Amino acid sequence: MIYLDNAASTPVHKKVVEEMMPFFKEQYGNPSSIHRYGRFTNLAIQNARKRIANMINADSNEILLTSGGTESNNTAIYGIASRSKGKHVITTSIEHDSILEPCKLLEKEGYRISYLPVDKHGLVDPENLKNEISDDTCLITIMYANNEVGTIQPIKEIAMIAQKKKIPFHTDAIQAAGKVPMDVREMGVDLLSISSHKINGPKGVGALYVRNGIKITPLILGGGQERGLRSGTENVASVVGFGMACMLAKDTFQNNITHYKKLTTKLATRILNEISHTTFNGHPINRIPNNAHFTFLGVSGEDLIMKLDENKIAASTGSACSVRIQKASHVLKAMGFSHEQITGSLRLTVGIINSEEEIDETVNVLKQVVQELRLLSPYKNKYNF
Amino acid sequence: MIYLDNAASTPVHKKVVEEMMPFFKEQYGNPSSIHRYGRFTNLAIQNARKRIANMINADSNEILLTSGGTESNNTAIYGIASRSKGKHVITTSIEHDSILEPCKLLEKEGYRISYLPVDKHGLVDPENLKNEISDDTCLITIMYANNEVGTIQPIKEIAMIAQKKKIPFHTDAIQAAGKVPMDVREMGVDLLSISSHKINGPKGVGALYVRNGIKITPLILGGGQERGLRSGTENVASVVGFGMACMLAKDTFQNNITHYKKLTTKLATRILNEISHTTFNGHPINRIPNNAHFTFLGVSGEDLIMKLDENKIAASTGSACSVRIQKASHVLKAMGFSHEQITGSLRLTVGIINSEEEIDETVNVLKQVVQELRLLSPYKNKYNF
Repeated sequence: MIYLDNAASTPVHKKVVEEMMPFFKEQYGNPSSIHRYGRFTNLAIQNARKRIANMINADSNEILLTSGGTESNNTAIYGIASRSKGKHVITTSIEHDSILEPCKLLEKEGYRISYLPVDKHGLVDPENLKNEISDDTCLITIMYANNEVGTIQPIKEIAMIAQKKKIPFHTDAIQAAGKVPMDVREMGVDLLSISSHKINGPKGVGALYVRNGIKITPLILGGGQERGLRSGTENVASVVGFGMACMLAKDTFQNNITHYKKLTTKLATRILNEISHTTFNGHPINRIPNNAHFTFLGVSGEDLIMKLDENKIAASTGSACSVRIQKASHVLKAMGFSHEQITGSLRLTVGIINSEEEIDETVNVLKQVVQELRLLSPYKNKYNF
Repeated sequence: MIYLDNAASTPVHKKVVEEMMPFFKEQYGNPSSIHRYGRFTNLAIQNARKRIANMINADSNEILLTSGGTESNNTAIYGIASRSKGKHVITTSIEHDSILEPCKLLEKEGYRISYLPVDKHGLVDPENLKNEISDDTCLITIMYANNEVGTIQPIKEIAMIAQKKKIPFHTDAIQAAGKVPMDVREMGVDLLSISSHKINGPKGVGALYVRNGIKITPLILGGGQERGLRSGTENVASVVGFGMACMLAKDTFQNNITHYKKLTTKLATRILNEISHTTFNGHPINRIPNNAHFTFLGVSGEDLIMKLDENKIAASTGSACSVRIQKASHVLKAMGFSHEQITGSLRLTVGIINSEEEIDETVNVLKQVVQELRLLSPYKNKYNF
């Protein structure tokens, strides 16, 4: 099998699994217990927190451990909005559902939400942001890199605008982590979400960076773990694994992005050269290096994925993080894509496990299946396939 | 080391770890992906859900997967209360913080909360419940077995009262699961919380049983996983592990409780016979078999735990599920214990890993350290130690 869906989830790194194992077998203490089992796991959580913080140049006490990216995003939005006087939130039209759905709920509760438009490359214009800010704006939440097309937003510029107006700024960096240099101090963000299973850590754990001085209301209440901001017995093994994944992501960063770039460049070059009526989507330069997003005109992306799957290649039409409902991508819609363009879309996301041989094999298979599907396409005559 | 803090957390069963491993190493697909990696993990989640449902005699579609017991409890309370017209919740004074804290928040939002009292054994009187019910009551939440003293409430009787008044009834069964027969149909509960790491599964995963027909509002929004009731990429490996833990808990139930009873009976008999000025707390009969809770007069439980720890025995004063803040147990207070009685309390909870030899060793050490501490006690003369 060739796995090219690393934006949906990634294999857990061997070193991460090794790091986790003792916390299933011998070190099963509850970190809140005062005996040595508890002290040991408590220390393990502290060490992991340091590694997580270190990846984004934060302090340990700015890291809030969560059950994953979705909870991190929800916590950021409710955590800030529910304690603010202002009832206006600014976001974009291309966010992940774990941002858009909480925003919709706030809307029902009487908040006003501004959804910033994007250009054809999926880029937000900071000028639009400036124009939307009002005295009532309590939160700006704009994703770092898009999960479908990989476009990176001008986060630093956005952060400066937010800072000037003293509005808390959150960014969903779940797809960006490990793929772009990430320094919360340099970026000037107030809150930032990351997820373990997108960077070769285990599923079910994530973090929300909350800059010192920023106050949030907790989403989940109870025993008072995470300084009262997220209760529940710590998911020790997974947190430890996440810590190791962050350390590896930081240590192998340069090698990884060089590897990703080589693979996606080859992928894009060969596909655009060898398959006609094909476009490469998202921003051509401001993009995460592991993402390659295409439109094959006259083809259904769904059919393409099934054909690729038959040929042992795992790919995706877009976001995998929503259940198997087939709705047209709101991201591509916002980028001005036609129904036909949206339908013909395919996302290929590479990871540390992929090789150049796999990329060549993928292109070879793609050429064949696109041709097969186009022969059956209702657009056959339109494009002279 | 002798680990007698199984109510705080348990070792992960060997078979559970084995079951989890492939989902780190080879089967890392996102269950929402439509390629074969996704289909495989999706199926794994379905199988695990069946095993979890099976443990409590529920249907698979009544199992809502969460990040743990705390989230399950929070979801039950907000999930019901926030969509109800009535603004009155009935609970007890001895619930876990993951029930009490959400109730306190509801109180701030204008809800009225009734905290039912308990008798000296920690038992709720169903007559008190009847008297508290009003036209405004939207939820009754009463724990199955107490996490500190192990007392089991008359859940079936309570469920019948709730049913008659058509009020949703939730029970926190986190400490009860695996220790008492649990059949949601026979009990007649509407919602029930369980946690994986209390029954030899991994931390970071739990479930909320929601009876078919009961509607709840989700706590975490996004991609629409769990039929829209709990978004976020499923924690596949942990869910699979939890499924196996539930299957084992059901299959080995009789052996386990026989084992627990033998150990706690020995523990209680020897301690009460061999250490003076000692009481056994909680209900003498209606109690989970793995819990033994004592008061050693004239001794500080904190000191006792540290001394036991020095002697390589892991024990607890009470709940471990709250961070290391040393506050007097609200459970023992509600049971009418004096400050001195509360201070001298020790909880010993056995598990599948413990042996009779360990129990004997524990009593031998306890005798010695209690004697040592009593010689330094301010109550030395009062009791003629």
